Amino acid sequence: MKKGIGQHAIGDSFEGFLLIREVSKGLTTNGKPFLTILFGDATGEMEAKLWDATKEDEETFVPEQIVGLTGEVNQFRGKPQLKVLTIRPAQPMDGVQLTQFIKKAPVEKEVLNEKLTEAIFEMENANLQRIVRAFVKKYGDALLSYPAAAKNHHEYASGLAHHIVSMLSIAKELSTLYPSINKDLLYAGIILHDLGKLKELSGIVTTSYTLEGKLLGHIPMMVEEIGKLAEELKIEGEEVVILQHLVLSHHGKAEWGSPKPPLIKEAELLHLIDLIDAKMNMLDRALNKIKPGEFTERLFAMDNRSFYKPLFEKN
Amino acid sequence: MKKGIGQHAIGDSFEGFLLIREVSKGLTTNGKPFLTILFGDATGEMEAKLWDATKEDEETFVPEQIVGLTGEVNQFRGKPQLKVLTIRPAQPMDGVQLTQFIKKAPVEKEVLNEKLTEAIFEMENANLQRIVRAFVKKYGDALLSYPAAAKNHHEYASGLAHHIVSMLSIAKELSTLYPSINKDLLYAGIILHDLGKLKELSGIVTTSYTLEGKLLGHIPMMVEEIGKLAEELKIEGEEVVILQHLVLSHHGKAEWGSPKPPLIKEAELLHLIDLIDAKMNMLDRALNKIKPGEFTERLFAMDNRSFYKPLFEKN
Amino acid sequence: MKKGIGQHAIGDSFEGFLLIREVSKGLTTNGKPFLTILFGDATGEMEAKLWDATKEDEETFVPEQIVGLTGEVNQFRGKPQLKVLTIRPAQPMDGVQLTQFIKKAPVEKEVLNEKLTEAIFEMENANLQRIVRAFVKKYGDALLSYPAAAKNHHEYASGLAHHIVSMLSIAKELSTLYPSINKDLLYAGIILHDLGKLKELSGIVTTSYTLEGKLLGHIPMMVEEIGKLAEELKIEGEEVVILQHLVLSHHGKAEWGSPKPPLIKEAELLHLIDLIDAKMNMLDRALNKIKPGEFTERLFAMDNRSFYKPLFEKN
Amino acid sequence: MKKGIGQHAIGDSFEGFLLIREVSKGLTTNGKPFLTILFGDATGEMEAKLWDATKEDEETFVPEQIVGLTGEVNQFRGKPQLKVLTIRPAQPMDGVQLTQFIKKAPVEKEVLNEKLTEAIFEMENANLQRIVRAFVKKYGDALLSYPAAAKNHHEYASGLAHHIVSMLSIAKELSTLYPSINKDLLYAGIILHDLGKLKELSGIVTTSYTLEGKLLGHIPMMVEEIGKLAEELKIEGEEVVILQHLVLSHHGKAEWGSPKPPLIKEAELLHLIDLIDAKMNMLDRALNKIKPGEFTERLFAMDNRSFYKPLFEKN
Amino acid sequence: MKKGIGQHAIGDSFEGFLLIREVSKGLTTNGKPFLTILFGDATGEMEAKLWDATKEDEETFVPEQIVGLTGEVNQFRGKPQLKVLTIRPAQPMDGVQLTQFIKKAPVEKEVLNEKLTEAIFEMENANLQRIVRAFVKKYGDALLSYPAAAKNHHEYASGLAHHIVSMLSIAKELSTLYPSINKDLLYAGIILHDLGKLKELSGIVTTSYTLEGKLLGHIPMMVEEIGKLAEELKIEGEEVVILQHLVLSHHGKAEWGSPKPPLIKEAELLHLIDLIDAKMNMLDRALNKIKPGEFTERLFAMDNRSFYKPLFEKN
Amino acid sequence: MKKGIGQHAIGDSFEGFLLIREVSKGLTTNGKPFLTILFGDATGEMEAKLWDATKEDEETFVPEQIVGLTGEVNQFRGKPQLKVLTIRPAQPMDGVQLTQFIKKAPVEKEVLNEKLTEAIFEMENANLQRIVRAFVKKYGDALLSYPAAAKNHHEYASGLAHHIVSMLSIAKELSTLYPSINKDLLYAGIILHDLGKLKELSGIVTTSYTLEGKLLGHIPMMVEEIGKLAEELKIEGEEVVILQHLVLSHHGKAEWGSPKPPLIKEAELLHLIDLIDAKMNMLDRALNKIKPGEFTERLFAMDNRSFYKPLFEKN
Repeated sequence: MKKGIGQHAIGDSFEGFLLIREVSKGLTTNGKPFLTILFGDATGEMEAKLWDATKEDEETFVPEQIVGLTGEVNQFRGKPQLKVLTIRPAQPMDGVQLTQFIKKAPVEKEVLNEKLTEAIFEMENANLQRIVRAFVKKYGDALLSYPAAAKNHHEYASGLAHHIVSMLSIAKELSTLYPSINKDLLYAGIILHDLGKLKELSGIVTTSYTLEGKLLGHIPMMVEEIGKLAEELKIEGEEVVILQHLVLSHHGKAEWGSPKPPLIKEAELLHLIDLIDAKMNMLDRALNKIKPGEFTERLFAMDNRSFYKPLFEKN
Repeated sequence: MKKGIGQHAIGDSFEGFLLIREVSKGLTTNGKPFLTILFGDATGEMEAKLWDATKEDEETFVPEQIVGLTGEVNQFRGKPQLKVLTIRPAQPMDGVQLTQFIKKAPVEKEVLNEKLTEAIFEMENANLQRIVRAFVKKYGDALLSYPAAAKNHHEYASGLAHHIVSMLSIAKELSTLYPSINKDLLYAGIILHDLGKLKELSGIVTTSYTLEGKLLGHIPMMVEEIGKLAEELKIEGEEVVILQHLVLSHHGKAEWGSPKPPLIKEAELLHLIDLIDAKMNMLDRALNKIKPGEFTERLFAMDNRSFYKPLFEKN
Repeated sequence: MKKGIGQHAIGDSFEGFLLIREVSKGLTTNGKPFLTILFGDATGEMEAKLWDATKEDEETFVPEQIVGLTGEVNQFRGKPQLKVLTIRPAQPMDGVQLTQFIKKAPVEKEVLNEKLTEAIFEMENANLQRIVRAFVKKYGDALLSYPAAAKNHHEYASGLAHHIVSMLSIAKELSTLYPSINKDLLYAGIILHDLGKLKELSGIVTTSYTLEGKLLGHIPMMVEEIGKLAEELKIEGEEVVILQHLVLSHHGKAEWGSPKPPLIKEAELLHLIDLIDAKMNMLDRALNKIKPGEFTERLFAMDNRSFYKPLFEKN
Repeated sequence: MKKGIGQHAIGDSFEGFLLIREVSKGLTTNGKPFLTILFGDATGEMEAKLWDATKEDEETFVPEQIVGLTGEVNQFRGKPQLKVLTIRPAQPMDGVQLTQFIKKAPVEKEVLNEKLTEAIFEMENANLQRIVRAFVKKYGDALLSYPAAAKNHHEYASGLAHHIVSMLSIAKELSTLYPSINKDLLYAGIILHDLGKLKELSGIVTTSYTLEGKLLGHIPMMVEEIGKLAEELKIEGEEVVILQHLVLSHHGKAEWGSPKPPLIKEAELLHLIDLIDAKMNMLDRALNKIKPGEFTERLFAMDNRSFYKPLFEKN
Repeated sequence: MKKGIGQHAIGDSFEGFLLIREVSKGLTTNGKPFLTILFGDATGEMEAKLWDATKEDEETFVPEQIVGLTGEVNQFRGKPQLKVLTIRPAQPMDGVQLTQFIKKAPVEKEVLNEKLTEAIFEMENANLQRIVRAFVKKYGDALLSYPAAAKNHHEYASGLAHHIVSMLSIAKELSTLYPSINKDLLYAGIILHDLGKLKELSGIVTTSYTLEGKLLGHIPMMVEEIGKLAEELKIEGEEVVILQHLVLSHHGKAEWGSPKPPLIKEAELLHLIDLIDAKMNMLDRALNKIKPGEFTERLFAMDNRSFYKPLFEKN
Repeated sequence: MKKGIGQHAIGDSFEGFLLIREVSKGLTTNGKPFLTILFGDATGEMEAKLWDATKEDEETFVPEQIVGLTGEVNQFRGKPQLKVLTIRPAQPMDGVQLTQFIKKAPVEKEVLNEKLTEAIFEMENANLQRIVRAFVKKYGDALLSYPAAAKNHHEYASGLAHHIVSMLSIAKELSTLYPSINKDLLYAGIILHDLGKLKELSGIVTTSYTLEGKLLGHIPMMVEEIGKLAEELKIEGEEVVILQHLVLSHHGKAEWGSPKPPLIKEAELLHLIDLIDAKMNMLDRALNKIKPGEFTERLFAMDNRSFYKPLFEKN
């Protein structure tokens, strides 16, 4: 199988199709216009400059356009940069489709769906189970297709479902180790905690933030949703407000976006399990790019730390 | 007219009716039980000890009970303390009623209602006006009767409406000074910003927090309410999410309980007007207790500062 | 009337006179010298590059020089940039004067002076009134002509007086709403709070900081001035130290430059009114540059927030 | 079986043997000496006052003394307090022993030892395994008997081993979920991370801090130990410094006592797993004391939060 | 010579004269009034309770009153407390004077004066020297008699001069080690940095804060003084503003009371030398009270740390 | 004697030998490769661009290579930049050696060694003296040759010894002023506090950090070393743990890298003396580059402050 852009090293030449992810326009110090384009496919992404860009270029090479491209991978400020030799918009007869160019979760959508269904099936508290089922039904395919974030972690198709399913695995084990855990509540919190992102983010391909997302954030949006849905389902009882609390507090601290810190044991656990899965995802991606004995690039979402990969790492 | 408990100085004797606000039980260093009771009426409150309290005393003297009492005002650790000489539960024939013992706003409920109605009448944006009207109708008398908080500021009957009406006055003046202000939006934000407290606080007499208030807080609760109501009224358009943003951000910073800081001009103003009115209310109350040339007690909600009352203060 | 530089959009051509505000020298990556010049007039400012700059250019095109210029407005890194076609120093016969090129307050100097005089006239406390009068006399035209700051807010000619007069309007309204306010003290604090800037900033055209401004800051400088003046006027009594306190504490917190936080009610109000007027000024300027539905650039002095302009904004 | 002191409610009378945990001396407001004694057994602890204490009492009733006692459980400032009726030092013929009065882990020492041995057996990296084995051998019974801390979490006999074994369970599950984890390194880090406490704390019964503990803290002490031991075992290679790093960084942040934050994936995981197990232990203990529908006392080590126990909690 | 109150241990009896430093009134749990009096002499201070205090007692036993007293030293909450047996106001014929009861610097006033004069004599910069001389002349005996602070460090008669002279010694040595130091500037800064306290504190015996001290603080007060004095002396030149800067910045950070941080090398040094001398003074006092092998009480002004006195400390 | 690179101003031409300190590769906006090289000698350093760099250039011009170079000093972004005219690798017959190109302490190694020996000779406590002697012997020439840091302060050959010796001078004077200081302990702490850097830094010429340095930091590494050495020397007693504490706490606060803050008087002094010497070193270097009346560049390690050099500075 052909190598994707994320598998090309400095010095390689490239020939194939790529998706335009971002474009910005600039002027050289000599006043000539150029385009800076971020190309990507399912394996990764790379930046390129398009020198002496014409008005027509500007109109042709826009986000979500697929192009056929030949070029070379050079180095610019320590990072690989694509030098474009030829570039043209893809044609219908090229037979390429948007979905081919999107990174995907390492687990298939069907498997994720199955594991999710299984967890819901295990739940015994009828109120919690009904709310969860209603949400899963309401968001349907979006829940299984969306990324978990625009960047940082699980930022690929089905990333949200992958994140949920991983967290459910940890929750299951912790429920065995600490029998006092209310597993139903923890499961419900895990499944719903990030669903507000389905409204906060605009879509799977170009994951920017909606106005509602920018002005309210996914946490209060989801708290509201749970309230509305419980009302529609005519569910009453403490489960509703406690589930809202789990979602509200899952960032752990006011300064991290949770107006109330966790005040229920399962809320505290939800916060910690979320941290573990998000951090493991970020670390694995960063460490995969380097060799044993090297440090990763600085990871902004992990306090700007640079992690070391030990030499004795098993192969 | 008879002087209330808040108008008694050290050395005075007291005879009259008082409401029990709080009770707690203790043991003397010699192992004998006693009750610490916080008595109050519309003019203020004072603590007393009930020595050698019997089981019966414990059952009789509970919060919300009105009592007939004679006593003397002593000093304990620098503060006035009531020494109880006789005490008995009020009887129906005493002709006293709970509402007589509650502190009230300095402006009558009817006047507050009138001013509120007037402000709503001035609004031109139909969406904002309809939402505001619906809330005023929904909460009705509670909106006009509740305190604005359990402590700190406007913690008296009709305190919430008093706070809203004062803020509307400031908003009106600022709208004249800065014509770019969207007055309708600012008015709507002011009227709704604290309505979540009607659900967060348990009532007018004993203002403690509900479970929902403790686990979610009044801000996310009100954001949810606005969303639900707009849906019921079938109102669409940016007004809804922007009004939710005004409520969401009115504490100004994540660490003060607003997951998003103000990102709309009127949201920033709402935050500042709220600060002015709340602080003026706290300061006036604290400064009224002291004479020119003295410092107030430390005010916890104002960074624990102690304020000075100048000697040249006008009488 | 001819359009100023602040009213030119990308793609426009420009012909007219401009004032040089700042100049810095650079080298292209090919080692050739160029000048980066910030041009401005009363309507705004725009940057330009002067390529292949000679020694003579460096000596001619310096700050406070007026030039005749033709050019085009291009885009560079997302911002408009002036492309210079011809440039020459202005001649006496061009009939242009420095004052034409300076941004001015939206209210005339005479009106500002009148409102200021009126407020002083309203004051009843003789000590406070005499101190304020003496300062207004001492700084005379400078008080009416200076900007309020080198950047951030009211950074135009008469900006300081405009800021003072706006704050006085708010203070007047608050004094009506809260009768316990000592209006004389609040007025005096408002008029004097920023006068230290007359010494801190070097002038109206090029508003940089003096050594004294850099080493002491305008707050301690003004506290000192009040002390000296009161001594000269042989004024004694608490008014002097309390007025010094109002100035000292008006930034609100030690980490914001006030060694003592507000400890007088009117000091707290002065701080809050200052915030409102400064923020409204910053926000209006930033929001005027964008269309409804857009976000402003990040505003450094407002915690780096980017504000949204609602679509339903009145026209 | 007889009920322990932790199982007595207000109003109960008590008869039996108790261990003195802490003693302090006071004066009543009338100037008479008394002793405040903290009594405990394996089920909990309770405070008592010994009025009119003689010199002899002071010398008799000291920490680690076992006494025979009859009394009643009263309430003082909202907490249960033991009222002593009779008290006498235990005699050899009473047949009571110190170890009976110490709280113990819910899992037997033998089981903990077995699970620990099993985990070490699973390790494949010879260097890591040899270091871990050497430590387990060196600390022997202390490792299996000590508490994990003087207070906060796992503060009972075998608490350290219980904490280690729980963390190993979580680590095992995470290693399955995230195959990139170096399980040997994570296991080694978990087993060694808190062993420094064996030197920091003075013993099992009275767990106070040694001078070395106070001046250096358990983290640098353990880093030193690993270095010394590796030298003795003549083990070289990155494993040593990386294991030291895991111990050094396991508190997560400089301000929490780790001079370096985690810079290895397994170090980050060690920190998070430690948090989960410590917090679950604290929460379970606090929640066990209350009924559904109540809030726990404030938990200092959990940011002073008070947690809620839902009404729908399974029984 | 007779032992002072600071040299009495628990169990000792006391007979002699003491100065009343502070008095506060309280009520016992049985409602009886008592006085809590802080007695002191040149060697230390001790608290006592005066039970069943009459109105007359209240009027007699007030701050700055000297009394003849017999009593015993008991222990209360771990601290020594004086049990009063007899107490009477001192009479003229007792021949005791206020100054006998005040703690003094370990160096004589004359010696301090001499060293100060010497340092001024060494100065070569005429402007700096004239300003310093003028201040020393202006404050005269107060400078040599006042404490450096109301509490924390050098809180005894002549404490300010003692602090200045110690700092000058360190400055002299550093000037030799680092020849680039402007010794004149550093000396001037050291002599003037805390003189504002002469206005901030009310006197030598009862060192409370003046209104000016509370509202402005000693730093802005001294900056103002330097400005006024330089004007009177008709001294111009950078020395004045730089000296003001040294005083202004000597607390090091805005949040510690310096609106500008040190921006001159000698200002940075002044800050560090001040820290060393203040901390050594605090530590010596705290360590003198304990034996080798013990920890001091918590020192609030040193981040609440408790310091250890090593066993191998030389005697 | 010929002028070094640090003594060349803009406009000068340069001819001589230079050491390559750092090299990085870049691409011009036109896609052509170039090298950015940092050249240095004992007097300073300057950056240069090597345009149109070939593969061979990349292999030749690497760190630690000495080159013969002719060029001119231009200005680039306000800083001097070397324009390379000719460049060639140095040959054996050029007779130049690495050590000639390294900045050195202003005091000779022999003198530093002598002063160090003298201080150790003064010590009276046998345990402390033996440990210190053993370390001086163990590190021998490295101690006398290494810089104190990779950047910030004393970043030149023999910088560490220079830093130690300067601190010993201050310690000596303070011991005279405050006789309670344990001079032996303070001396020992000063000599050992930064020795961990001999392991943390990789060498004298290219001072980068070792893996151990990055994962553990010099403080825990040195605590470990002291422990090991004391064991080898069979020294027991509090001196060992207290010396470890001095090293551990010398950064003063947990967030600055000291897991325990100073809890011994001499530890607090060690921290303050370290601050003085490091800051004086940084300030002198920065102030030497500017003229009176100017501000230094911003100093990152001093809270990003820019310091002023007074006009009346002595010449």
